[in-house]
This record gives sequence, C-alpha cells and structure tokens, in this order.
Amino acid sequence: MEFTVTHTDMNSHGRVGMIKTSHGDVKTPIFMPVGTVGSVKSVEARNLINDIDAEIILGNTYHLYLRPGCDILNRAHGLHNFMNWQKPILTDSGGFQVYSLSKIRKITEEGVFFKSHIDGSQHFFSPEKVIDMETSIGADIIMPLDECTPFSCGYDYTKESIKRTHRWLQRSVNHLKKTRNDHNRHQNLFGIIQGSIFKDLRKESVDFVTSMDVSGYAIGGVCHTEGNFNGLYDISGYVCSLLPKDKPRYFMGVGTPKDILECISLGVDMFDCVMPTRCARNGRLFTTNGIIQITNKKWESDFSCIDSGLDNYVSKNYSKAYLHHLFKNKELLAYQIASIHNLSFYLWLIKIARQHIMNNDYVQWKNDILQVITVRL
Amino acid sequence: MEFTVTHTDMNSHGRVGMIKTSHGDVKTPIFMPVGTVGSVKSVEARNLINDIDAEIILGNTYHLYLRPGCDILNRAHGLHNFMNWQKPILTDSGGFQVYSLSKIRKITEEGVFFKSHIDGSQHFFSPEKVIDMETSIGADIIMPLDECTPFSCGYDYTKESIKRTHRWLQRSVNHLKKTRNDHNRHQNLFGIIQGSIFKDLRKESVDFVTSMDVSGYAIGGVCHTEGNFNGLYDISGYVCSLLPKDKPRYFMGVGTPKDILECISLGVDMFDCVMPTRCARNGRLFTTNGIIQITNKKWESDFSCIDSGLDNYVSKNYSKAYLHHLFKNKELLAYQIASIHNLSFYLWLIKIARQHIMNNDYVQWKNDILQVITVRL
Repeated sequence: MEFTVTHTDMNSHGRVGMIKTSHGDVKTPIFMPVGTVGSVKSVEARNLINDIDAEIILGNTYHLYLRPGCDILNRAHGLHNFMNWQKPILTDSGGFQVYSLSKIRKITEEGVFFKSHIDGSQHFFSPEKVIDMETSIGADIIMPLDECTPFSCGYDYTKESIKRTHRWLQRSVNHLKKTRNDHNRHQNLFGIIQGSIFKDLRKESVDFVTSMDVSGYAIGGVCHTEGNFNGLYDISGYVCSLLPKDKPRYFMGVGTPKDILECISLGVDMFDCVMPTRCARNGRLFTTNGIIQITNKKWESDFSCIDSGLDNYVSKNYSKAYLHHLFKNKELLAYQIASIHNLSFYLWLIKIARQHIMNNDYVQWKNDILQVITVRL
Repeated sequence: MEFTVTHTDMNSHGRVGMIKTSHGDVKTPIFMPVGTVGSVKSVEARNLINDIDAEIILGNTYHLYLRPGCDILNRAHGLHNFMNWQKPILTDSGGFQVYSLSKIRKITEEGVFFKSHIDGSQHFFSPEKVIDMETSIGADIIMPLDECTPFSCGYDYTKESIKRTHRWLQRSVNHLKKTRNDHNRHQNLFGIIQGSIFKDLRKESVDFVTSMDVSGYAIGGVCHTEGNFNGLYDISGYVCSLLPKDKPRYFMGVGTPKDILECISLGVDMFDCVMPTRCARNGRLFTTNGIIQITNKKWESDFSCIDSGLDNYVSKNYSKAYLHHLFKNKELLAYQIASIHNLSFYLWLIKIARQHIMNNDYVQWKNDILQVITVRL
C-alpha cells in the first residue's frame, strides 16, 4: 500500500492524500460506509458507486465470521467477489463487536472467548485467527485484534490492557508475515492506538505501534456514540500530533459530520460510522441545509426535493413529502432512499473538505458550514 | 387512449398490440408491477425503468386514499409527480381492498361503507367519489368502483351484485364525463366484467359493459390467489371470446407465470399481481431455469449468478450464495435484489411472449417454457 500526502492545510493539520491499494485508489480524507455483514444496509453496490461516490467500504470481521463464515468467503474468493464490490475494503478486527455485542466473554493472553449474539454458540478469537479470517475476507486494509476498553475501567486496567493489545499487534504482524506467502492478496495491516482518556498511555501506545511494521494507524476506543465525550478532539488531536506524517490515520467509528470535520483539522485521514445509515433508517436526514427528521408532520406536504445541494439522483428527484409518506407507510423504499441520501451527504461533505484543504481555507469553511448543517430544520 | 392490435397469433387468441397514453406507449401483452401505496415495494423508480423495463405500473386507490390522501396527491399534481414516475399508471378502484382488507363494511346502492385497516376510521366510497379520487391520483387508466363477489356467495347474490356494479359503472361514466372538463388529465376508464363462475352472468356483464363508453375491459373477481381455481382459464377464455377485439382486456390480479401465459393465449392483454414482489420478499425467485427458494441451504455456496438468462444488473451480478446470505441476515438489500429480479423475470417473460405471438409459434413456445420455468429447483 502506498500513501502520499499531497497537501497540508496552511492553517490546520488537515491534509489531503491518496492511498493506493490493489483494488484502486482512495482520496483522503475519506469516509467509509459500513457494510456490516457484506452489505451497506439498504444500499446496492451500484448505488455506492453511482450515487454515493464511495471509494472504500468497511466490513465487520465479527459479523462476517458468524455469517456467512470464512468457508463461504474462501470459496467465493473473498468478500469483494461475494458482495460484487471491486473497490477497496477495510475490515475491523471484530474486537469491538465482541465487546459490545457478545454479553459473555473472557479475555486471556491467548485471545478472547465469546458467545455469538445470534445463537449463543461459543467462539474464540486470537490475533492469529483474526488475521486468518481477514485473509479469507480479503480486505485491502485490515485491523489487528485489540481490546477496546470502556472509559469506566480505570487507569490500571487500561495500562494492562494496552500492553496486551501491543503483544497482540506483534503476534498479528508476525502471523501476517508468515502467512502472506500462502496467498496472493495484498493486505495492509494497520496498528490500533488505545489508551482510553489517559494521555501517557496513548503516548505509550503510539510509541509501540509506530515501532511496528504497519501500513497505517488507527485511533481506537474513543467514541462510538454521537459526540457525547468532550475529550474526543483532545485525544485525537494529541495522538495525531505524536504520529509520523507518512502514514494514514484512521479514527475508528467516528462520527457525526461535526466530529469528522473537527478531526480532519486535527490531522485524521479516515473515518467510518454507522450513523448515516442508522439515522437514515430512523428518518433522520443530514442535508446541506441542516438536519431533517423526515417523519415529522411538517414535511408531509413539502414537495421540494430532499436536497437540491447534492448531485445524486435520489436527493434531487424524490421529494421530502414522498419520503415522509414512504416512512409513514414503513415502505422499504424509505430506508433505501434515506440511506443513499445520507451517505451521499457524508461523501459530499468530505469531498468538499478536501477542496478546502487544498485551498488553505479549511478552518473558515468548516466553521461556516457547521453553522448550517448542524441546524435542526 | 388509443389501442391497436398489430398482430394476432395464427394458432391461439394471443395478440400483440399497443396502448398509447399521454404518459407514453405500452406494448401488450403487458405485466404491470403493483405500486400499492406509491412505491413498488423495495424497488426504486430508476430500477423499474433501467432494470425491469416496466412500461406501466399499478397504484391502489384504496391505499393511496388512506395515505397520503387525495389532498396531498392534488397538491403534488398527481401520483406521477409524487412518486417520480413519468410513465403510465393504472389505478384500481379500491373495491377489492375494501372487500379484502376492511373487515367491517356495508354495501348500499349508493356505495360502500368501510373501516380503514390502519386505524379503524370510517369511510365511504361511491362510484363518483372513486372517480374523484382517481382524478386526484391522475392515473392514465382508471377502474370504476365494483363489487368483487366471492365465489361462495351464490348465483342469486351474484346476479343482484352485477346489476349494482353495472349501475355503478353507468354512474362512473357519467361522473367522469361531467368532471373531465374541470381538469386537463387524459384518464381512460375501463369497465369491469363480473359474474363470478356463472357464464350467463358473465355474458350479461359483457353485454352491459360493452354497451358503455369505456376504453377497455377488465375481468374481475376470478382469482387473487395462485392458480387454485380451475375455472380461471375457462372463465377468462369465455369472457374474451365475447369481447370486441378493438379494446384492451385486463385480467385483474393475475397471476402466476403459467396463468399469465395461458391467459395470453386466450386473448388477455394486461395483467397485474403482487406475486413477483411478495414472493421476492419471501425468498421465492422465478428464474429462466425454474423456481428457487433462495433461503434453502442448497444455495448457500452456489456462487453462480441469480439468473444468467436475464439481462438486468442484479440477476447477472449478484450470486445465489450472496442473496441467500442477505436473506439469512434479514438484510433489506435481500428484498430489493429479489424484487428487482422477480419483476425483471415477469417483464422478460411477457416480452418474449410478444415475440412468439409475432412469430405465430406462441402455443408451442408457451408449452415448452412452462416445462422449464415451473420446475422447483
């Protein structure tokens, strides 16, 4: 994998770059739609390309391991073929889902025991097994197994946890080197920086991860909810300030449009979040004019298009009144149109962000546009 | 509305023709996807045109009356604009839904009282009110209010019922003439032939309906379930034999691929049915090789495309294994892909049927292809 920073904003740490993978190039900063279990919910692969301009999507190793399973993915020659998506894919390690979805688990030095959230069956992930699964999936960028510690677990546990996460990273790097010869796939392992809200632990994690032979850096364990942790910018800014500039930085699970724009100015290059699709299914639309709860009565007879500020077909050709009607009737088309719209908005936002970094007016633009797009209409 | 029969099969009553409406032409025989409440379930308007080759769709007056309601549809300037579909639309009268969905109802000479299946609110449909609603909807082809009698109601009731249905048709014709000057829409009223399984009543109905100034003939009350009434071909063949040849014949709510092909050979021109989309949502796929229950284990690792015999994107580019996986995970994309596929199959089948009528080898082709497409794989 090749990564080049082509421009850094003169007034912030925002940077524009390009990641080259064997499935194509990705312009950074980038937002990656989440394709949990081999589909970006409600969105066809064609729409991801033609409407949304998605350049890379994310797959969840935990979900794909449980269904369809590695055997099927191996026989399909990987997730790209299986889901009919020939652009780049990034897979998480499954660690976060093990901690958030599987109620019963046990973490040992060897790995993590957990029960499937689907049928309660027992499973075990080790760093090596996760790399093997990600090889079956065949993603272009892969994450190592880590422990995603909750804020509540305190300094001592976090310190112990990051040391184990580092040992797991070392094992992941070793295992990928050992197995890389067995297959032809060009997979690039990132290292994950943990350490919760503790800056000295974050620094310790940065020191370790940057000493490893990895293709990029992920910031983990900060935020998987909507902007309710004030330290989000503090921690991500601090971590970015410590990281070398020659590799991409991926803020896992972030976030709101505001969080993304703020973190871009701190030097983050890659983002993923279920927010645009999950909000879409609940009728919450991000638009170039502000936030719309399309199920509200006020949109019932608003025959203007969903968002004239976006170029994609659905935002320009379906009216707010029609989408309101589809939601009221629980028509499946509602979720489809809303999901395409919200993802188009996210990809539009990040594309414009790149232009303003190139123009060196990113900070002013960011502050101005946040005044508009965060308004509740 | 103009209708021309361009060719009649030399060995059956099958005929090829063209309906011209102000929203475009429709080649017959034709299958009309059902857009119940302003959306063909799970299918975007673009897919109807680009993938499915739909030429005309159906809207349900009963559903559209309840939601979004005529006020919204008037303010949207009709259903075409509201749902972003500029090709022809046909609307049923709502009669069938009143009888099938609304448990409490009372039929009088004036019209029918019923309770909404959504909230139990009380409503009343008269022939005049239905025409007014269909004017708000603005469909190109509209159906008059009729009574759709169940087979079980006996000869005497059916005889009484068709006489009322005929009086309602007369009122519908009168009301449409009276109100046509108030708006610019070119709406074409069909007459519905009822009479249940009683041939003399069917003949009485044909005699009355053909004496009216209507643009086409619909065969009602025969079948809304899958081929479990042996008299379906008998009745439709008999009715077609009595009908003049210069107007289109529409068999309401039919049906299976077999029913459609058989009825084409009896002289029917137009069909609609929820079967392709409803079956799709249950994982039942019609393919050029036979019927597939995609949720069955046997498709789990079949990486061949859904149907190489069809030209549309989804049938050619997504595998059976992938669609199986999406269904197993209840991913909304499953319903979307399966619905596009099944409708594509229906429109493909009817397109090929037209070619074989033109070639005068329709009957042989029909018998051959039914051997293939009705097999359960």
